[in-house]
Amino acid sequence: MKIAIAQLNYHIGNFEGNLQKMLKATAEAKGKGADLIIFGELATTGYPPRDFLEFRDFIRLAEESVDQLREASEGIGIVVGSPTINPFPEGKDLHNSVYLLYNGETLHVQHKTLLPTYDVFDEYRYFEPAKNHSTVLFKGKRIALTVCEDLWNVGNENPLYTVCPLDKMMPEEPDFIVNVSASPFDYNHAAERLEVLKANVDRYHIPMFYSNIYGAQTELIFDGGSIVLSPDGKVYDELPYFKEEIRYYQLDDVIKGGYDREQPKEKIALIHDALILGLQDYFGKLGLKKAILGLSGGIDSAVTAVMATRALGKENVRVVLMPSAYSSGHSVDDAKALAENLGIRYDIIPIASPFDAFNTLLTDVMEGKPFDVTEENIQARCRAIILMAISNKHGNILLNTTNKSEMAVGYGTMYGDLAGGLSVLADIYKTDIYHLAAYINKDEQVIPQNSITKPPSAELRPGQKDSDSLPEYDILDPILYMYIEKRLGPQEIIDMGFEEKLVRRILRLVNISEFKRHQTAPVLRVSPKAFGVGRRMPIVGKYLS
Amino acid sequence: MKIAIAQLNYHIGNFEGNLQKMLKATAEAKGKGADLIIFGELATTGYPPRDFLEFRDFIRLAEESVDQLREASEGIGIVVGSPTINPFPEGKDLHNSVYLLYNGETLHVQHKTLLPTYDVFDEYRYFEPAKNHSTVLFKGKRIALTVCEDLWNVGNENPLYTVCPLDKMMPEEPDFIVNVSASPFDYNHAAERLEVLKANVDRYHIPMFYSNIYGAQTELIFDGGSIVLSPDGKVYDELPYFKEEIRYYQLDDVIKGGYDREQPKEKIALIHDALILGLQDYFGKLGLKKAILGLSGGIDSAVTAVMATRALGKENVRVVLMPSAYSSGHSVDDAKALAENLGIRYDIIPIASPFDAFNTLLTDVMEGKPFDVTEENIQARCRAIILMAISNKHGNILLNTTNKSEMAVGYGTMYGDLAGGLSVLADIYKTDIYHLAAYINKDEQVIPQNSITKPPSAELRPGQKDSDSLPEYDILDPILYMYIEKRLGPQEIIDMGFEEKLVRRILRLVNISEFKRHQTAPVLRVSPKAFGVGRRMPIVGKYLS
Repeated sequence: MKIAIAQLNYHIGNFEGNLQKMLKATAEAKGKGADLIIFGELATTGYPPRDFLEFRDFIRLAEESVDQLREASEGIGIVVGSPTINPFPEGKDLHNSVYLLYNGETLHVQHKTLLPTYDVFDEYRYFEPAKNHSTVLFKGKRIALTVCEDLWNVGNENPLYTVCPLDKMMPEEPDFIVNVSASPFDYNHAAERLEVLKANVDRYHIPMFYSNIYGAQTELIFDGGSIVLSPDGKVYDELPYFKEEIRYYQLDDVIKGGYDREQPKEKIALIHDALILGLQDYFGKLGLKKAILGLSGGIDSAVTAVMATRALGKENVRVVLMPSAYSSGHSVDDAKALAENLGIRYDIIPIASPFDAFNTLLTDVMEGKPFDVTEENIQARCRAIILMAISNKHGNILLNTTNKSEMAVGYGTMYGDLAGGLSVLADIYKTDIYHLAAYINKDEQVIPQNSITKPPSAELRPGQKDSDSLPEYDILDPILYMYIEKRLGPQEIIDMGFEEKLVRRILRLVNISEFKRHQTAPVLRVSPKAFGVGRRMPIVGKYLS
Repeated sequence: MKIAIAQLNYHIGNFEGNLQKMLKATAEAKGKGADLIIFGELATTGYPPRDFLEFRDFIRLAEESVDQLREASEGIGIVVGSPTINPFPEGKDLHNSVYLLYNGETLHVQHKTLLPTYDVFDEYRYFEPAKNHSTVLFKGKRIALTVCEDLWNVGNENPLYTVCPLDKMMPEEPDFIVNVSASPFDYNHAAERLEVLKANVDRYHIPMFYSNIYGAQTELIFDGGSIVLSPDGKVYDELPYFKEEIRYYQLDDVIKGGYDREQPKEKIALIHDALILGLQDYFGKLGLKKAILGLSGGIDSAVTAVMATRALGKENVRVVLMPSAYSSGHSVDDAKALAENLGIRYDIIPIASPFDAFNTLLTDVMEGKPFDVTEENIQARCRAIILMAISNKHGNILLNTTNKSEMAVGYGTMYGDLAGGLSVLADIYKTDIYHLAAYINKDEQVIPQNSITKPPSAELRPGQKDSDSLPEYDILDPILYMYIEKRLGPQEIIDMGFEEKLVRRILRLVNISEFKRHQTAPVLRVSPKAFGVGRRMPIVGKYLS
């Protein structure tokens, strides 16, 4: 039996686009003599469709896509994920299902049992879990069909669920496991995923064909990396990350095994490639082309400009240098040098004149109070007005350049430097931004060395440095990581050796900044715990604040 | 048996504050000879604690609160909701539980079975549902303890769950039902809630003591309205809405029944009171006092100013009138008249000078393109800079005045009139804003008639009217309602008699504005489907866009 894994980039709600991709892949696979082609989870609708699932009209369109795939299944089995309607009045109205279509018929439908409802996932919001589990006979082979999370209750000591769907299917003695997935990237995830898949093969001793989607949907980046495992638990093949690909396998060869073709998984390289896909798909799926950002001469905007240029092309990225009265001369020079290295358009627009106009206008209402964060914010907001004006006039989408350390402690101005349609770096701590800059510069110096080595500063008052208000990033970042990624409380972090007063101050800063993060752009997710949909915190909460 | 319902206002993560409130109420109830006092769902932590639940430190603090309540339970039974740790490795790590504490002991713990995971609720994100159900004997009476949603699977034809926890308890023949709730307000909810409670009493024929929390937690407003039902299905008592209150009941009197003391539920009056509580608690729970907003002379900012003044006091509200070159003279007059009626401070700060400074500064990069939405947005953003500057300098929190119709179709400027820390009206369609204005003016004319009757306009270009870009609100609003609240698809709405082209245009506007709503302030929720945490839509989605 020849089996194709089609690792495709779907688009939420783009039924026609998704269907055409699958029909094309099916035709190609038929041409190559494949018996079976495997697409992804909720491939008809794109993942995650979120509350579109509550529209009957949306479900009807998904069903029509399945109808068309069924028609295209003459001579080839098609495995595809799509929502189905729960026929019983009790329970949620939908199932998250996988179909096996063949010769114009539905051979089998298996519903998903384990519904991830944590971090960025909300599946129990929409779906009723499967109560029944069975395998399907296809061309003399018995297949155990599963959907993504259905594999994830195996091989850990504190499982999230009380059932293992494959345990229920094993009495039917399936020949191999098929899994359709929509498993989003973080820098640890490819390794974890492989471990879980291996734990399943260790438990069931049959081959596994794991078909993941790739492509970004706003903040979520799906990395592909589909996997074929032999019964010996070794990686028969792993599909590339961040790329569309269809590959073919002879079941007998997979059963024989003997290969171990795992890809390298280097954190910073993966993040680099993930950000490029995230940018490309945000623009591409919204039908946009052009980006704009403010270039300060610092490392964050420099890295953002590089990523945007690599993702969108130099002709589609423009930058604006907006020096304030407090900007150092070399900031402008460093920014210019970067723009010239990248070959992107830059304009220099100093913010003194609107800043002065606001100061004059506001003299009375400021009541003679001294220069403080108010005036810093006015400057940051003047920059946002300039960037948004160019964005509005010429159609360039503003990219936000905030990093995760700043975003965590609220070091940024709402409607100022926190503005933007997409936040490129806000899931990457400052210490990793340096690693990413070094990775960018590995072959040639794209980012001027000075942007990397000089002390970080917002340059909104004389001689300002980040370290005036924040601890050094090599102390700040580990504390943030323990609190945000690891969900440790203050005492646990203090017990690791950090100073109590500092820990309490930083955790408080994180919690009282929730109102700012509520209003920021979607953040490209590259870590196991990103700000945004995967981290849901009360604004009026009193805990640690 | 004398039973107290304590309808209290908890604060998320404010363990000490929540505990002290409950201890005080317990002491009062003991003094009045009560046998049992009933608090709310997750009363120790406040509801909804969201991802704070993922911190072991947070759970430990909740457990310490329960320990203290247990100590205070000498001579009085205390029913209180709090998270508990799931002792089994399988499944989620927590339960959402209700305790009965008495004489320094835990008499009973019942976990919640039905975990709302829809709209604003995410309970399966955190909690494992109860597998076991039992009642508890207290002073010779057998009590069925339940938590909120546990009652909600009764009395509807398409129930969300496949089990009814009270069905499982009935073989033990309980004498009455106790329910601790955190059931948030919308303008339909009090009536729906009563219907569901009555369906339970109809099914089980025993009295029900339903204790709801009140108070707002950012966008969610809990209205109280706790209920005592007699076995005859009649309302023995209903506690007030939006108010702290402890009431006492003799079980025998409740069993006798014969009363029907339901409160009136008038939509606009409820919304009015809900907004006041929402504002008071947003400020109060964040430790803030003072608000600011821009007053345009139009109805939305006028209603917002009235609500803020009623909630926070006239000494805590200030407004800024920021006429543009395109503002009509009577807009300033109407705004001034309102500020004078309310007795609040107003400043007049025309935006011409910074707007001119930006126009001059941007001449080159605008490349001679004509005045368009870019320049409208610059003006709206100049206003936001002025408001935020006063906010930063003097500590007044900016209130957003956008209504739901505008928010739906994206009629507003990001970082401009969409700015603000809290959005007061963005869950109220424009047609209902008129009803709210009329309700405000019912006793005396607070809002100038001209603000109510003149055609809505942003006044950002000569002669501009909302109806230039949008259909009239009495056509727009019903279409939006069918799409947003009722989740009808385009064909279903067209079939109701609306023009196809218009329906498709409006639904498209809603969907392509998702990126704007992603960055707006939390919206006080008064409808069954508000923008924000209860409506989760993809930004890059292609459906109807």
